[in-house]
Amino acid sequence: MKFTITRSTFLKTLNDVARAISTKTTIPILTGLKIVLTDTGLVLTGSDADISIESRINIADENNDLQIDSTGEIVLPARFFSEIVKRLPEDKMTLEVKDNFQTVITSGASEFTINGLDANNYPRLPEITADEALTVPAEVLRQLINQTVIAVSNQESRPILTGVHFTIMGDQLVAVATDSHRLAQRTLTLPSASTTNYDIIIPGKSLTELSRMLSEDVEKIEIRIAENQVLFVFGQTAFYSRLLEGNYPDTSRLIPTSSNTQVEFDAPVLLASIQRASLLSHASSNNVVRLVLNIADQKATIYGNSPDVGNVEEVLTFNKLTGEDLEISFNPDYMKDALQGFGQTAIEVDFTAPLRPFTLVPTEDKEKFIQLITPVRTF
Amino acid sequence: MKFTITRSTFLKTLNDVARAISTKTTIPILTGLKIVLTDTGLVLTGSDADISIESRINIADENNDLQIDSTGEIVLPARFFSEIVKRLPEDKMTLEVKDNFQTVITSGASEFTINGLDANNYPRLPEITADEALTVPAEVLRQLINQTVIAVSNQESRPILTGVHFTIMGDQLVAVATDSHRLAQRTLTLPSASTTNYDIIIPGKSLTELSRMLSEDVEKIEIRIAENQVLFVFGQTAFYSRLLEGNYPDTSRLIPTSSNTQVEFDAPVLLASIQRASLLSHASSNNVVRLVLNIADQKATIYGNSPDVGNVEEVLTFNKLTGEDLEISFNPDYMKDALQGFGQTAIEVDFTAPLRPFTLVPTEDKEKFIQLITPVRTF
Repeated sequence: MKFTITRSTFLKTLNDVARAISTKTTIPILTGLKIVLTDTGLVLTGSDADISIESRINIADENNDLQIDSTGEIVLPARFFSEIVKRLPEDKMTLEVKDNFQTVITSGASEFTINGLDANNYPRLPEITADEALTVPAEVLRQLINQTVIAVSNQESRPILTGVHFTIMGDQLVAVATDSHRLAQRTLTLPSASTTNYDIIIPGKSLTELSRMLSEDVEKIEIRIAENQVLFVFGQTAFYSRLLEGNYPDTSRLIPTSSNTQVEFDAPVLLASIQRASLLSHASSNNVVRLVLNIADQKATIYGNSPDVGNVEEVLTFNKLTGEDLEISFNPDYMKDALQGFGQTAIEVDFTAPLRPFTLVPTEDKEKFIQLITPVRTF
Repeated sequence: MKFTITRSTFLKTLNDVARAISTKTTIPILTGLKIVLTDTGLVLTGSDADISIESRINIADENNDLQIDSTGEIVLPARFFSEIVKRLPEDKMTLEVKDNFQTVITSGASEFTINGLDANNYPRLPEITADEALTVPAEVLRQLINQTVIAVSNQESRPILTGVHFTIMGDQLVAVATDSHRLAQRTLTLPSASTTNYDIIIPGKSLTELSRMLSEDVEKIEIRIAENQVLFVFGQTAFYSRLLEGNYPDTSRLIPTSSNTQVEFDAPVLLASIQRASLLSHASSNNVVRLVLNIADQKATIYGNSPDVGNVEEVLTFNKLTGEDLEISFNPDYMKDALQGFGQTAIEVDFTAPLRPFTLVPTEDKEKFIQLITPVRTF
């Protein structure tokens, strides 16, 4: 195998694929990057067994300026190889595989020889034979991921909760995540209906990594679902993730259908207040803030307290306050995560009782997005 | 004590002073920030016993918009207080000390009450009675610090080597640092001669912290030296550092006076090559690169090697190569640190023999700045 390429093009693709590569893997060859060169171009692959990313550099695309001398394949130590490519002196680089998988990388007067591995020993990527591809605008998927993945559990004691539950029926996609203290649910209408119904759980880590790859120049994303894998295709990149096995708990009953107290806030204004209140709750052993809503006085006040450091009290700015008086305590970090998902919009917070979960929804399109937080008993 | 101030002004001064405050101190009150308010303005103080920083906010400076209700003093937990000031909602903030050192910070609808400490228990700053003040342009001092502090030892086994040795005679200032593997020496002509001769050792950590505070809007810096303290004054800030006690080794004999091989490089070009070579040496148990200079062929080649990963070979671009053939091995990290001190300039590297220290000097003003590196025996 031997080729010459514009270094910046190669590095960009290399960096994308390297996202999947972990140094902590138990399968040594997965610390490597697989490079396959055929007559049509280069394919780079990285994997940590859970996530696999494959990205193409086509010879047909003149921007890549790919010159092929001979085809072949090799696995190179990913971290070193990335560092080398990043620091090469010239715009062009040449890579040539010699005997015993020795690989020579040259650029200007610099010549690196690194020990490669036989690509035949690299695990095969899962084959996804699903005929049907669902198409979603990339920006919508990115938002959906960021809004739900915050509620995923990071405890391996209930592995199923470390994923986001996706159900697809017709043109309706519902994504739900819960760590049993809070829940985030986002509903989406697909551009075209799915002929198959799906019920899958995608690991939160995979989704976070995927979301980071969806830069602004990615417009749409194609989703293919198989029995234990999901494949996202965008641009020249294929992103594979394994699915979590098991049944996701029924979360539909958790969401209250009525409320006794309602407050409307601008999400960023409430977020700033919560961040201030959490400065003191973080210094306390129980990370809790208290919200007091007084209907007659039309007053909402938040309190944070740390016996060691001191306390904070802030009169909140809201748009509307209706229903019954309420005093409720909750973890401000759950509230912060939830509020960040709403961006700049106005939201409604609906309470039923001091010890019952409360919900946050956008004031418009209330059904599309809901965050639920379980309060904390402080007495 | 009670005052109102523009939050951004206060925060800037607070951040400057907070540089000296460590959470790891063994003296609990030093995790606090001391605030003293007199009729002329505010003085903030932070200290970790080695470094103390005192910064003033004058009432006379209208930009500060300082309104004094009553004078007094308090010590507040630095980390929390900084976080609070950073996150307050309005442009203005009011601070008031109540009974039992309880301190109330208000801004808009937000009110923080934090537990302060009696400022009488805060250690006094050292008194520096030195009459004489040396004045140095801030940018020159910043450069001098960055060029020498790299060679300071970070091992406490010989504490004296963790400092930079300053000798001042007349208008000549010489700063030297060595960790016994390398040495950096910078000479400076002072704008006006000192009437006293000084021989002091300033801890490297203090100098690094000082250099970080010398932003572009600091023009000149005043230095006052006492028996076991040095004081740097710039703008509204006083920076105190303790001095290291003991005799610094005589380093003048270490610097070779003649050489057998000379190469001229552009510092940034050589730096890039060294960085590439070090990619592989870092993966090896002995972090060493090899330089081979061939006079007849007018060729300079650098080699890096890691048995596990591979090797690199690069033909270096130089401006001039004279003297005798040479093959020498050295730690590339020492070379990188040294080269960074030269910035964009051309440098001369002078060698005597494969196992003798070699030097780097700028091609112009050779006497002003010298870096010395001890090679590594590889056979």
